Amino acid sequence: MANHDALPLVVLTEQFAKLPGIGMKSAARLAYHVMSMDSSEVEEFAQALLNARNTLHYCRCCENLTDRELCPICDDPSRDPSTVCVVESPKDISAFERTGEYKGLYHVLHGLISPLRGVMPDDLRIRSLIDRVREGGISEVIMATNPTVEGDTTAAYISQLLKPLGVSVTRLAFGLPVGGMLEYADEVTLYKALENRSEM
Amino acid sequence: MANHDALPLVVLTEQFAKLPGIGMKSAARLAYHVMSMDSSEVEEFAQALLNARNTLHYCRCCENLTDRELCPICDDPSRDPSTVCVVESPKDISAFERTGEYKGLYHVLHGLISPLRGVMPDDLRIRSLIDRVREGGISEVIMATNPTVEGDTTAAYISQLLKPLGVSVTRLAFGLPVGGMLEYADEVTLYKALENRSEM
Repeated sequence: MANHDALPLVVLTEQFAKLPGIGMKSAARLAYHVMSMDSSEVEEFAQALLNARNTLHYCRCCENLTDRELCPICDDPSRDPSTVCVVESPKDISAFERTGEYKGLYHVLHGLISPLRGVMPDDLRIRSLIDRVREGGISEVIMATNPTVEGDTTAAYISQLLKPLGVSVTRLAFGLPVGGMLEYADEVTLYKALENRSEM
Repeated sequence: MANHDALPLVVLTEQFAKLPGIGMKSAARLAYHVMSMDSSEVEEFAQALLNARNTLHYCRCCENLTDRELCPICDDPSRDPSTVCVVESPKDISAFERTGEYKGLYHVLHGLISPLRGVMPDDLRIRSLIDRVREGGISEVIMATNPTVEGDTTAAYISQLLKPLGVSVTRLAFGLPVGGMLEYADEVTLYKALENRSEM
């Protein structure tokens, strides 16, 4: 946008452009769209942003995003607490839940080990995973990080820490396209990957 | 998103999914991204939405979006007030300004005539354009609507109203790909279309 544009519109465009996958042209389009929305709709949108950011925190048990103390999955007595699926981020949980086949619990790392980006093991929620396993009742931990260098490294690192605790550590089968992103996998591929998981 | 997701996150995802060109999967990605932003950044974003929507209105002269009474283009004494370029929406002005070649003023219709969608001439800012021309001082009106059925219809309709007023009415040259969208045209194509405009 150039200097002939009204400043509030430029500011809004820049805010949209900060979001992942949205360039300056799409951002301008979205900003102009906001101008055509009702005032009340824009207020709802702004409120949804603030609400989501301010009322959500991490589940005491699995580190998933929730507005309660325990997330609905950890709090569900019909789920099998002896299996824990370790994922990079909360959006990966949605992908597994869509398969409808996984009945265990989750653990969210909130990132992957990446020395190049300065993300070290202590920056992730690994300690709380070890504590969960130490408390007992868990027989299998499924490493469900993305099949990328960082995902594999993180899975291997956590596996080394968990094995001495006498728990079975498995990895998703590579039904997933190598180098791909877990959240874009279709339900069947993801279910196959879950079914064919292997000891690591 | 399924029922295991926290409600504020579902609400935010739905808000993003209402925006043009954003499907449910992208919307979920954006919602999760908001969770990883600083609280202060989210507040800035929400504030930018409200500011843009609440402080902007239409320019008294050309109907462009502005936070002043006259937009910076109408208010610029170095622009040529005898030429008026008629566009569908404010974002089309940005496209023309990027060419750096157009020195006249604009008029924003805020839509195109489309009986199928129930948009009639009276729903657009056509009356204020006629009034501007009646006031005098305008020698040429350039119809710069998109080269689509609706854009051509609107240009022809306005042309019929303006010609009896003794003003020259021109149409952008079809350097633009027919059926394409004006806002995605590159600067050179748009400049050529402007240069080769023809009497209509």
